[in-house]
Amino acid sequence: MYFLTYLYQDKKCVGFLDKEKKGIIPASAVFSKLDRAIPSDMICLIEEFENTDMDSIEKILSSSDTELSLDDVKIMAPIPYPKRNVICLGKNYLDHVNEVGGLKNVSADIPKKPIYFSKIAYPAIGHGDCVDSHKDSTNELDYEVELAVIIGKKCRNVAASEAEDVIFGYTIANDISARDLQQEHTQWHKGKSLDTFCPMGPVIAHKSNISFPPALEIKCYVNKELRQNGKTEQLIFDIPEIISDLTSGITLYPGDIILTGTPAGVGAGFKPPKYLLPGDTLDCVIEGIGTLSNTVK
Amino acid sequence: MYFLTYLYQDKKCVGFLDKEKKGIIPASAVFSKLDRAIPSDMICLIEEFENTDMDSIEKILSSSDTELSLDDVKIMAPIPYPKRNVICLGKNYLDHVNEVGGLKNVSADIPKKPIYFSKIAYPAIGHGDCVDSHKDSTNELDYEVELAVIIGKKCRNVAASEAEDVIFGYTIANDISARDLQQEHTQWHKGKSLDTFCPMGPVIAHKSNISFPPALEIKCYVNKELRQNGKTEQLIFDIPEIISDLTSGITLYPGDIILTGTPAGVGAGFKPPKYLLPGDTLDCVIEGIGTLSNTVK
Repeated sequence: MYFLTYLYQDKKCVGFLDKEKKGIIPASAVFSKLDRAIPSDMICLIEEFENTDMDSIEKILSSSDTELSLDDVKIMAPIPYPKRNVICLGKNYLDHVNEVGGLKNVSADIPKKPIYFSKIAYPAIGHGDCVDSHKDSTNELDYEVELAVIIGKKCRNVAASEAEDVIFGYTIANDISARDLQQEHTQWHKGKSLDTFCPMGPVIAHKSNISFPPALEIKCYVNKELRQNGKTEQLIFDIPEIISDLTSGITLYPGDIILTGTPAGVGAGFKPPKYLLPGDTLDCVIEGIGTLSNTVK
Repeated sequence: MYFLTYLYQDKKCVGFLDKEKKGIIPASAVFSKLDRAIPSDMICLIEEFENTDMDSIEKILSSSDTELSLDDVKIMAPIPYPKRNVICLGKNYLDHVNEVGGLKNVSADIPKKPIYFSKIAYPAIGHGDCVDSHKDSTNELDYEVELAVIIGKKCRNVAASEAEDVIFGYTIANDISARDLQQEHTQWHKGKSLDTFCPMGPVIAHKSNISFPPALEIKCYVNKELRQNGKTEQLIFDIPEIISDLTSGITLYPGDIILTGTPAGVGAGFKPPKYLLPGDTLDCVIEGIGTLSNTVK
């Protein structure tokens, strides 16, 4: 099951991808048949979904007609306005630790605890949208494909063995980064948070589509050249560990988003570095979810 | 003019302090006389206020009766659920840089650029609420009184000379911190973001009450002992610089909150350190705004 947020006739809607992944069944069509409130956005949809028997939704979907073609809508980020900043992990793939360790002030040590920072996504931009190059602010614009976890339930103190239970699904994120700002400001928050720096989507894959913990190919192409090519099972801190550690002291809510880190191949890791320039195309691909494409303007 | 958010008969309301600062004039009483939509929360109030002639509001306030005593309500944080995380500055008073520089991995250098991190405040707790000691997560619970700037207008690329124009007002924050988590996780986000770690309030003082840039006494008492005693004109990066630097690349919105840093006297700076324990009382005082009191539980 795949979920998406889209603009249709200037109205923001949420819905499901059909079986061929070429059309949309609006959430309104499904929830009205269930005699339930029609979710106005993805966070409401997640909350409604978590309180509904999944089999009954699947039954309705399989008997529903596709109402819209993907060509007729503008796809938005699945959660364009998260209720809190996106939570991100730094240096969570060994090969990425090795490529950036030693650059400027970056430690080459393997982290002993997860490195969390947050990213403003207000809005998170969607598939097909443009990343602003912010030429006045940065000369070191970089990309980072990441598997994003979407939380499904309010939770705290979650044991690693129970982590899958609080997950709703997964999407793709590109953790756009201004390397010079990350370094100059010491903490990474600003260098990760310029406007348009959080492309996400195109869809959320429900967790039932993905084995757990996810073992998925994760790739990023720049101008069709393969730059990042990893597997999500290579995470230093895997998703059960992240959720267990993060929720020790912090309550998570439906619709919270966790970016799990990026594999090797970012622009900063090349000698000389391969930073992004206006006109560059970015395609982030994660097996079982899809492709998130954006252009630098 | 002072604004507050409060619970009255289990309903969340926004309003104004009366002249004696002992009673409340609800926003509903003021905006209904203006024939304007009644703001449902502080962010709506800020937006409505920014679009209204301030003299006409003052006129209505001066002729309005106090409707509620402060004793009859529960004061909440002025903005209990900010739309994005609270933006914070680290090491922004010289005497604080000196007291923590050299501890563990903290650099003793004076920052050349503002150090930004973010803090989850979901909810921000209010005056009178309890800070959770999180004994299972931290042994190094600390306090930091800070002047908090509340943004009034959507803005980007604001010149330092125009910074006051985008400010709505000021409140008091206590940037509660788990020093061990700050250090272990490298980036500070988690150590600053445990549940209840963001007390704010009790009121927002409108910018017209405060000279610009603010030159205010800022103090924190622990168990009535004066621990922090600074002046907000001692900021390394002052408010015009912060707003100018932050909005270069990042759009700010009405209701965004910026914590401007803490002066010397935090628990970590004492030898041996004076960390917080259950039962400790915290009183953060900023001249011209008020006192924010909380207890550690």
